[in-house]
Amino acid sequence: MPKLSPYKRELSYAYAPGIFPSHALLDARPNAARRLLVHSASQDSDGVATLRARCDSLGVRAETADHALQRISRKENCFAALVFEKYDSTLRADTPHVVLHQPSDMGNLGTILRTCLGFGLMDLAIIQPAADLFDPRVVRASMGALFALRTASFDSFEAYRAQYPGHSLYPFMLDGAVPLRQAAAHTQSPYALIFGNEATGLPPPFATHGQAVRIVHGEQIDSLNLSIAVSIAAYAFTSQHFEGGSDHADSSPTGRTSH
Amino acid sequence: MPKLSPYKRELSYAYAPGIFPSHALLDARPNAARRLLVHSASQDSDGVATLRARCDSLGVRAETADHALQRISRKENCFAALVFEKYDSTLRADTPHVVLHQPSDMGNLGTILRTCLGFGLMDLAIIQPAADLFDPRVVRASMGALFALRTASFDSFEAYRAQYPGHSLYPFMLDGAVPLRQAAAHTQSPYALIFGNEATGLPPPFATHGQAVRIVHGEQIDSLNLSIAVSIAAYAFTSQHFEGGSDHADSSPTGRTSH
Repeated sequence: MPKLSPYKRELSYAYAPGIFPSHALLDARPNAARRLLVHSASQDSDGVATLRARCDSLGVRAETADHALQRISRKENCFAALVFEKYDSTLRADTPHVVLHQPSDMGNLGTILRTCLGFGLMDLAIIQPAADLFDPRVVRASMGALFALRTASFDSFEAYRAQYPGHSLYPFMLDGAVPLRQAAAHTQSPYALIFGNEATGLPPPFATHGQAVRIVHGEQIDSLNLSIAVSIAAYAFTSQHFEGGSDHADSSPTGRTSH
Repeated sequence: MPKLSPYKRELSYAYAPGIFPSHALLDARPNAARRLLVHSASQDSDGVATLRARCDSLGVRAETADHALQRISRKENCFAALVFEKYDSTLRADTPHVVLHQPSDMGNLGTILRTCLGFGLMDLAIIQPAADLFDPRVVRASMGALFALRTASFDSFEAYRAQYPGHSLYPFMLDGAVPLRQAAAHTQSPYALIFGNEATGLPPPFATHGQAVRIVHGEQIDSLNLSIAVSIAAYAFTSQHFEGGSDHADSSPTGRTSH
């Protein structure tokens, strides 16, 4: 591997900044780990020692790299980071999907990844152009959840749909025909929950794709924050499963161990 | 009013940074407006012209203040800001409350304010020590929702409770006894949804206050982000009202116009 660069989208590798995200990477994708960066001020901490030991056993080299760590983490303190090879995942065809159409905010994206993982929605499609999933800010905001999910990027919604023609589509739109509670009570599996860009939402043609859903709220706000909307939808579509009142068994997420 | 300072918690005034938050202040709390700051580069924009006109009719003076605007907004562009006098609200005793116990993240707080407004939860109690509601970063993240809500600060949960003894308490805890879906289906009005600090949650004694609730999720994450948890709870407790299937009429938020 050449000398490490500040993160750029074009690089073939990326950084998991921090001890927790680095452990998450080793848990989910040990084969992607390439190099462990450690800050000289923190070599003795428990978290870093455990990381070192795990990397050792995987044959991943550790090195002191104060300057690189500072560049990666910007203002935040960062005692360790893993360099990892970017990877592609294939989404499963038999599980629920979350589809984000051209999301642009890295903090939102990280929060969404974490919430999806929490509710067992393990397959995430990103329609380009979009914020970079592998940006250290996304990885950090996701607290490493990125690595546990299957994530795939598509050039267009049509390209996604061509690959996964069997999912029931639920585009979330401000003027969606069906309220969320009603939609979530009668889901057909496998389903895809589709959300638009933070500023512009989904383009109007999405209203004709499947069953357009609205999260009903008062008129005092124009719309919910994207990460809030995705999280409420994820909760509504999976809570029968997680909270045990499974009157709609076909809405249970699959592809995960039961809880 | 003396020369404007960079925002500090100790000041008796604060800033609504940006055109949208400034309009929100004028909509909800016109009497709190003190001075309009305008950037010299933006005096002709529609948004600023409308702000000027509204301030004129209220007798609020406008002035060009490029340097002050830069200090208030830090890195973001900011073409206008309203200086306003901080205010206290009294929460209503007959409406649902959201109680945040020692929240520390300003971005979370802003997002929560906006979501509460969206779901008609108009009364917010903040238990100290906590992030400063009037910090420009909170105001900005709330997109001005702060001004439309009734917000009150309390030195302790006991102080809050002494003033509002009649609310049914729903503390949200990772090991809460009742799943959210079940709790939200049988609410007693008026209710108070109570959430702990981002890192530490609610102290264990809260489990004995009313009906402790958990948002059930998988084991792959420790907990949901605070703003996500509050938003899911707000949705679950109010969706019967907003989505029309009012099989539990007593869970409807009150104190707002119907939708």
